[in-house]
Amino acid sequence: MCEKAGSSDPLDQSPQDKAVVDLDHHHEHVVSPDTRIYMDYNATTPVYPEVVHVVTEALNDAWGNPSSMYLPGVKAKDIINHSRESVARMVGGKATDIIFTSGGTEANNMVFHSAMENYWKSSMSVEGGHAENYLNGKKLFPHIITSNVEHDSVKLVAEHLVKMGKADVTFLPVSRVTGRVEVEDVMAALRPSTCLVSVMLANNETGVIMPIKEICQRVKAAKRSPSSPRILLHTDAAQAIGKIRVDAQELGVDYLTIVGHKFYGPRIGALFVNGPGTMTPLYPLLFGGGQERNFRPGTENTAMIAGLGKAAELVTTNLMKDEAHLLEIRLYLEQRLLTLFGKEKLRFNSHFHGTDTLPNTCNVSILGQGLHGRRVLSTCRRLLASVGAACHSDHGDQPSHILLNCGIPYHVAINALRISVGRKTSREDVDIVVQDLRDTVERLEQMN
Amino acid sequence: MCEKAGSSDPLDQSPQDKAVVDLDHHHEHVVSPDTRIYMDYNATTPVYPEVVHVVTEALNDAWGNPSSMYLPGVKAKDIINHSRESVARMVGGKATDIIFTSGGTEANNMVFHSAMENYWKSSMSVEGGHAENYLNGKKLFPHIITSNVEHDSVKLVAEHLVKMGKADVTFLPVSRVTGRVEVEDVMAALRPSTCLVSVMLANNETGVIMPIKEICQRVKAAKRSPSSPRILLHTDAAQAIGKIRVDAQELGVDYLTIVGHKFYGPRIGALFVNGPGTMTPLYPLLFGGGQERNFRPGTENTAMIAGLGKAAELVTTNLMKDEAHLLEIRLYLEQRLLTLFGKEKLRFNSHFHGTDTLPNTCNVSILGQGLHGRRVLSTCRRLLASVGAACHSDHGDQPSHILLNCGIPYHVAINALRISVGRKTSREDVDIVVQDLRDTVERLEQMN
Repeated sequence: MCEKAGSSDPLDQSPQDKAVVDLDHHHEHVVSPDTRIYMDYNATTPVYPEVVHVVTEALNDAWGNPSSMYLPGVKAKDIINHSRESVARMVGGKATDIIFTSGGTEANNMVFHSAMENYWKSSMSVEGGHAENYLNGKKLFPHIITSNVEHDSVKLVAEHLVKMGKADVTFLPVSRVTGRVEVEDVMAALRPSTCLVSVMLANNETGVIMPIKEICQRVKAAKRSPSSPRILLHTDAAQAIGKIRVDAQELGVDYLTIVGHKFYGPRIGALFVNGPGTMTPLYPLLFGGGQERNFRPGTENTAMIAGLGKAAELVTTNLMKDEAHLLEIRLYLEQRLLTLFGKEKLRFNSHFHGTDTLPNTCNVSILGQGLHGRRVLSTCRRLLASVGAACHSDHGDQPSHILLNCGIPYHVAINALRISVGRKTSREDVDIVVQDLRDTVERLEQMN
Repeated sequence: MCEKAGSSDPLDQSPQDKAVVDLDHHHEHVVSPDTRIYMDYNATTPVYPEVVHVVTEALNDAWGNPSSMYLPGVKAKDIINHSRESVARMVGGKATDIIFTSGGTEANNMVFHSAMENYWKSSMSVEGGHAENYLNGKKLFPHIITSNVEHDSVKLVAEHLVKMGKADVTFLPVSRVTGRVEVEDVMAALRPSTCLVSVMLANNETGVIMPIKEICQRVKAAKRSPSSPRILLHTDAAQAIGKIRVDAQELGVDYLTIVGHKFYGPRIGALFVNGPGTMTPLYPLLFGGGQERNFRPGTENTAMIAGLGKAAELVTTNLMKDEAHLLEIRLYLEQRLLTLFGKEKLRFNSHFHGTDTLPNTCNVSILGQGLHGRRVLSTCRRLLASVGAACHSDHGDQPSHILLNCGIPYHVAINALRISVGRKTSREDVDIVVQDLRDTVERLEQMN
């Protein structure tokens, strides 16, 4: 998808510098020489025109308080429940399994909070507490297993629990061969006090798809003392949804995080919970007016929820087509890069032997002095991409810790470019971007 | 503002029953016989056309990840910061004092969380903890003062802390004469372990304005042992903003809750914090990608934040005019009610001797058998109003506990109607609504 220079932006004083993203996908595809080309779809996606339409319509027509008993309230409630069904369908759940949240960060935090609460609550229901919660009479902390390549909204929650002395956390290193969390490593890390396993479905930087189904099967089959706490299973599916098929039931997870702005939806999210409060414990982070069955109170953001539902419908309807397109374009991108730079000059950080990855994510380093990822991107005239997670973009000229943790050597990782394509990325876009990279690298190499 | 029957609603099977709210305020004011008239502006407000425009524009043009370093990200960041300035200006704060949240519920929860964290953190910094935290060697809980007429997003947080054994809470009864929390009562309730006073700025059902400025002045002047914790001061200004002038500095609060959908903005909110992390402690509820200076991580909801900023600008620009209009219309409503029903038949639950109230809120009981508020409202053909807070609308045929706590007798409270007018409510609307009420009461009385 292209961005083109525009002059209608009140915030921009220098129209020639700026990039307004064109969302009218129906216009003719005119690429002018100063067109910026967005290939950072893992950072965020444009809101799809159909989604914008639904949000705007709800803002105008469905602003009633969903808790009000008269028609404008009932109408808003209907829209919310319709959306709940669409989001559930997208991830293979029931409508009652969906709790709307302000975003993925809140959803992930809620899972960790619930696991902690459930550990202590269930401990109290066992006579004398979980036998395994005590070692030589000393109380044991709840234990959590996660990976060392998680998004900050999992990583920092886990680190906070450790810092506060509230939990022990194993940050499982991913395999440097496969880029994945290995099932055997999860099993070896289990302790009698383990109460949560949280591993992302697909990594945002490498695109590596984690073996969540196998992890869930093996953990559920693990022999545990009856007095041990239940091990809750969570996956953050932020990067997977809209790119590969995601079915929470098939994966076997208790919780699955859904993030609208990664699949052309608005900036809210949802948490799939397999039978919230019945089959799977769920403890609210917030207290208030009783919305979302008290699991997540606060007057519902009807318009954004409506948009999330529409974006989910689009995923459900178009996934096979989208997935094929993303794969085709990404493979074309990699082939063009190889053609223009040669095999010796490139290292694909998203290629791991025998590992499935997201169809749209190309993480590549152009090898050589002075070709740090940040420098290359800030010199590019056409390409908009990133060196890693957007929320790390101000971390200075350091390589991504995710890539380092995947075994990518420092001098390679620091040159990394994460190029993630989208539904509307064309071969023409790829041609322009690869030529832009070629020109940029030539300029930078002449400056060295 | 009027609602008129429409037929474009896909969710509605019976067009003659439904009410689509007309947001085009520029159209001619045509009132057809089946027009519903919305007078529940304390439950929620329509999103103003200018706000919808800004939200839609941002959804289309400013969808970049605000953490991204390239132009679409920078543009989104600029919009967010512009909005932060508008919201700050509305409440008399600095831009750095504004933390965007998903809504008022989250903002209120964050204040209680921060007060609790600060109590224990500051306790640790005093040698041996706060001397007052111990009584006969037993650890004392942090103590919180709030009122017995707060919104659920304060009340239930406080009750949860009590239930978990984490805090002592005094739910100060409001005066049955003034409907207010009295400053002397706050002072009498102070304990050495008090760490938070949280009193709403204006009540959502009675419209009573609480003496926040006086409470803050007196609490700050109270003599405290140097080892006592600081008393943090919070007001939930959800119902006050857009109806009366709200200046956080003038009030003297440390925290002030801002809720977009109560002032014609979108369903997000913000927390004013007087120097977050420097002058006033603020501890995050969520952990993640570092947004909002780590106080509230999660990819920013740019479009809704843009809308909140626009709604704040409209408040700042039009407050004096709006306040005068609301007062005029509400007084006209009360006068019309008195004319049509007679003084003996009415009891105004929002009239307290010598107490300032919101200009727009009329809480009135039509006295008599069989005239329960819910019954009257469900029989009305034109009026859309409520019997109390929207989030209590499913509480069955019970009178509002808020009104009972204000000293309104049971048989009066159960007949209560909360009629709250808005920016566009006209005298013509009032005439229709009062006649509708008169007709409804006649019908109901004939049925008795």
